[in-house]
Amino acid sequence: MAAAAGGFRALDDKSLLEYIKATPALCAQLGNQLDGISIKEVGDGNLNFVYIVVGPGGSLVIKQAVPYVRCVGDSWPLAKERSYFEALALKEHGRLCPDHVPEVYHFDRPMSLIGMQYIKPPHIILRKGLIAGIEYPLLAEHMAEYMAKTLYFTSLLHHSTLEHRAAVAEYCGNVDLCRLTEQVVFSDPYKIAQYNRWTSPYLDHDAEAIREDDALKVEVAELKSMFCERAQALIHGDLHTGSIMVTSDSTQVIDPEFAFYGPMGFDIGAFLGNLILAFFAQDGHSGQGNERGPYKKWILKTIEETWNLFHQKFISLWNEHKDGTGEAYLSDIYNKPELQLLAQKKYMSNLLHDTLGFGAAKMIRRIVGIAHVEDFESIQDDRKRSYCEHRALECAKKLLKERCQFESIGQVISVIQAIPV
Amino acid sequence: MAAAAGGFRALDDKSLLEYIKATPALCAQLGNQLDGISIKEVGDGNLNFVYIVVGPGGSLVIKQAVPYVRCVGDSWPLAKERSYFEALALKEHGRLCPDHVPEVYHFDRPMSLIGMQYIKPPHIILRKGLIAGIEYPLLAEHMAEYMAKTLYFTSLLHHSTLEHRAAVAEYCGNVDLCRLTEQVVFSDPYKIAQYNRWTSPYLDHDAEAIREDDALKVEVAELKSMFCERAQALIHGDLHTGSIMVTSDSTQVIDPEFAFYGPMGFDIGAFLGNLILAFFAQDGHSGQGNERGPYKKWILKTIEETWNLFHQKFISLWNEHKDGTGEAYLSDIYNKPELQLLAQKKYMSNLLHDTLGFGAAKMIRRIVGIAHVEDFESIQDDRKRSYCEHRALECAKKLLKERCQFESIGQVISVIQAIPV
Repeated sequence: MAAAAGGFRALDDKSLLEYIKATPALCAQLGNQLDGISIKEVGDGNLNFVYIVVGPGGSLVIKQAVPYVRCVGDSWPLAKERSYFEALALKEHGRLCPDHVPEVYHFDRPMSLIGMQYIKPPHIILRKGLIAGIEYPLLAEHMAEYMAKTLYFTSLLHHSTLEHRAAVAEYCGNVDLCRLTEQVVFSDPYKIAQYNRWTSPYLDHDAEAIREDDALKVEVAELKSMFCERAQALIHGDLHTGSIMVTSDSTQVIDPEFAFYGPMGFDIGAFLGNLILAFFAQDGHSGQGNERGPYKKWILKTIEETWNLFHQKFISLWNEHKDGTGEAYLSDIYNKPELQLLAQKKYMSNLLHDTLGFGAAKMIRRIVGIAHVEDFESIQDDRKRSYCEHRALECAKKLLKERCQFESIGQVISVIQAIPV
Repeated sequence: MAAAAGGFRALDDKSLLEYIKATPALCAQLGNQLDGISIKEVGDGNLNFVYIVVGPGGSLVIKQAVPYVRCVGDSWPLAKERSYFEALALKEHGRLCPDHVPEVYHFDRPMSLIGMQYIKPPHIILRKGLIAGIEYPLLAEHMAEYMAKTLYFTSLLHHSTLEHRAAVAEYCGNVDLCRLTEQVVFSDPYKIAQYNRWTSPYLDHDAEAIREDDALKVEVAELKSMFCERAQALIHGDLHTGSIMVTSDSTQVIDPEFAFYGPMGFDIGAFLGNLILAFFAQDGHSGQGNERGPYKKWILKTIEETWNLFHQKFISLWNEHKDGTGEAYLSDIYNKPELQLLAQKKYMSNLLHDTLGFGAAKMIRRIVGIAHVEDFESIQDDRKRSYCEHRALECAKKLLKERCQFESIGQVISVIQAIPV
């Protein structure tokens, strides 16, 4: 197709239809029945255009990256090459964990366009489910499975250093998206920055306290350096509760456009940190026959189970493949059960500390940085919202600064529960 | 020149002369006087062929990589592409620290051949000077200068993450040399391996004790992972005392073919670890009017001064450029003197711990691994040599396992001095 081959052009509903007609892989997904298909733009994220395409013979989603941050406008340019890394990560994570990653049907690099599986209703964005107070009994199990498989198999526990360095080099190209994270997660919240906002005036003092907290800022610098320097595994890079679609028995992880080789704790922390945000937001959703006490307990249980199941599954993969291709712990050196146990204990303890640090940093930036979360934004009353946000901030600061003292997720739950009312 | 453009061929004295004649950049360094030039092959290292070319009008060195490990033979293949990374690192480190890095005149990628400055006599390899008991009053100052400049300016303290990720990706290509390090430093010494050797039977128990030391092996795995995952700065990658040429007033760092983006402590540790080896070897060189007591004191003073001067110079660079391009500590976040001090203290403390870990690992591998050091090898008497080696091993194990407890280099010196006789 001439237009696609010739370079980039932003599509709309109409030109997208022409594009689909000219692309056999997409037609095939629609059962080659193109009469009567409907196209709906649904991109509610910050960065891209997303079209749901449904016809009598099938369905798909088209996601197109545009060369700027959508929620800010073309004053904030952003490499549309992110689409390439998203497609690459979808395929790689999909290969490792097909149950929880949508299938890619088609990728057009010049057009920065991915055609992929439509995650159909009743799937909704997990964040919306958490706001609505819906329990997902398999969420912890599914997310533990997704994280254990994608992180283990792309780390040096499974990779040779030869394949690892080649993959690391490839994903170094996704630098624009990494820089966006560096700015909005690790920098802007700790200084006066143009797009920062918070529930003012209630949180004015909280925001200032964060900018003045030397101990916190020194720790954040270490986390930022780890994010920039440590190629531990192919991480999703943006694994918050808005990147996950759920039903009661299905969990699908979408939008890995921030994917690169970084610290595992950044993914696990993003998920758990956003669950903690959801926990603290519940008091803003409760009242008048809408008691959220039991749901808060369910969120805490899900946090605890996610880590514990992740731990269990990750260690199982390690044990299962201990004589495999991974070069971090060669089997003829780490060949004794008690030594293997010691090594795993240390590895998982470090990973918990990284997880808490990154998770807490992600919590903070959602309250005093540019991009807020609907969990809090949907609380209409400013005072009520700021009360929830304040407690989340207090929790995050404690987890971040004291992260290396935690030995179990149970201790983390205790800290969450002990944040003063 | 057809031969050079056409691909690789290993040169000898005669074909090298033809090569030089056909290469204007090399002729120019010889003052275009090619009659009466002498060519001498002097490669005493493990990997390459090195020719000294001296004529009436000038001099130069030609270094050619061959596609195998020279000291083992073609049964151990090794990418000759290392030559590309050596030339790249020589140029980059030379730009940052021209006083201590030889100049590159010419690089021929297909031929894996570098033409560079001849570091003339009376320069000798530092290791040989240390064995001879020669004091180098400026060594600590020079090495501190070299390490501070090359490491600071290639880290995120000076780099934007944009230039950092691009450079990291480029050096991922030097994976073959990284893998060699991974094997001979972090793996082979801790298992039964074909090329391992030690002073037998005296050190049989020591070698076995290392293979059986679970606490040590868990720490070594962490260091290996850091080596493989952490792109902190463009490191030399092989900064032992055989990669340094000295006179009383000049210090030149050669042979950065292992260069890649790795942890800074690997370079600093290589240098300090090899000085510690030199220290423990002195008892093997002393006796019969050759008292090494004062020289041992000088080595310890040099270790202490190297770290302290490095610390001072590194921090000076940081302070001088704190409002510069580096993105690890943005000036509008880390803008207070006491905060800057806190951040630097933490950074340097972590760096000391990394340095001790990597330094100790490099010591161990030189005693029970494949490649030994002349410091010990030149001690003829097996019993005497093994006594020196045993003490060095005890010191290394302690430094490696307890590295995070050290707060100053003075404490390290105390440990070295307290190793039982």
